[in-house]
Amino acid sequence: MSTAALCARIQRADALINSRDFAALADFYTEDALLVLKPGLQVNGRTAIIGAFERIAAHFGDDLQVRQSSFQVLATGDTALVLARLALGAEDQPVAQRQATYVFRREADDQWRCAVDNAYGTGLLDAQMEVAP
Amino acid sequence: MSTAALCARIQRADALINSRDFAALADFYTEDALLVLKPGLQVNGRTAIIGAFERIAAHFGDDLQVRQSSFQVLATGDTALVLARLALGAEDQPVAQRQATYVFRREADDQWRCAVDNAYGTGLLDAQMEVAP
Repeated sequence: MSTAALCARIQRADALINSRDFAALADFYTEDALLVLKPGLQVNGRTAIIGAFERIAAHFGDDLQVRQSSFQVLATGDTALVLARLALGAEDQPVAQRQATYVFRREADDQWRCAVDNAYGTGLLDAQMEVAP
Repeated sequence: MSTAALCARIQRADALINSRDFAALADFYTEDALLVLKPGLQVNGRTAIIGAFERIAAHFGDDLQVRQSSFQVLATGDTALVLARLALGAEDQPVAQRQATYVFRREADDQWRCAVDNAYGTGLLDAQMEVAP
């Protein structure tokens, strides 16, 4: 998969989040994917991730909007590390800016899916908290 | 592999770098691993990576010392994203501090090896350079 195609896949996932189509979002993730919700708190597995997105969207009054840019893709074989600038917020809430890190895996059906979704990037190191293995 | 064991593997690799044992260092990486040398410049494959470390060590007058701490491990299945604080330098050169990102894969022989070594972390986004896919 080219860098452009991988970035397009992330932007497609953002569009699904922005339109609350969380059922379709599930296919963006590997079955056992890990999502960092905040420093020290993570969820595992598609079902838990989709549930988390539903709660996050509700927290933002169903007005959550995410947008990403400045992608950097470091890919080799069936593995890719993707870095991106992430902006998220709702109409009436300040936009948070983050430098996100994603790990993608190419699975048996030749689809690239996100195995690790860490929107906090290396900011987790500043949070000085241990993330459980 | 536990978080502690994965961190120990990284610290073992650091010890091999510090003692110039680059031949032994090769097994730390997957065959097709990617190493970011600096923003916009990366090398692929064990042979190229070991050659790059030899040149880096020579640049530091064979006095290169690396040390890592504050590991954060985000692991699921056969994939792990590792974040760490990295300090590197030589006796007569200032120590550089970085927030590094590594992607590890568990391979067929059950060994975890580094597939993506990006010591610059999300700092690549600030470098505003495109990294070739």
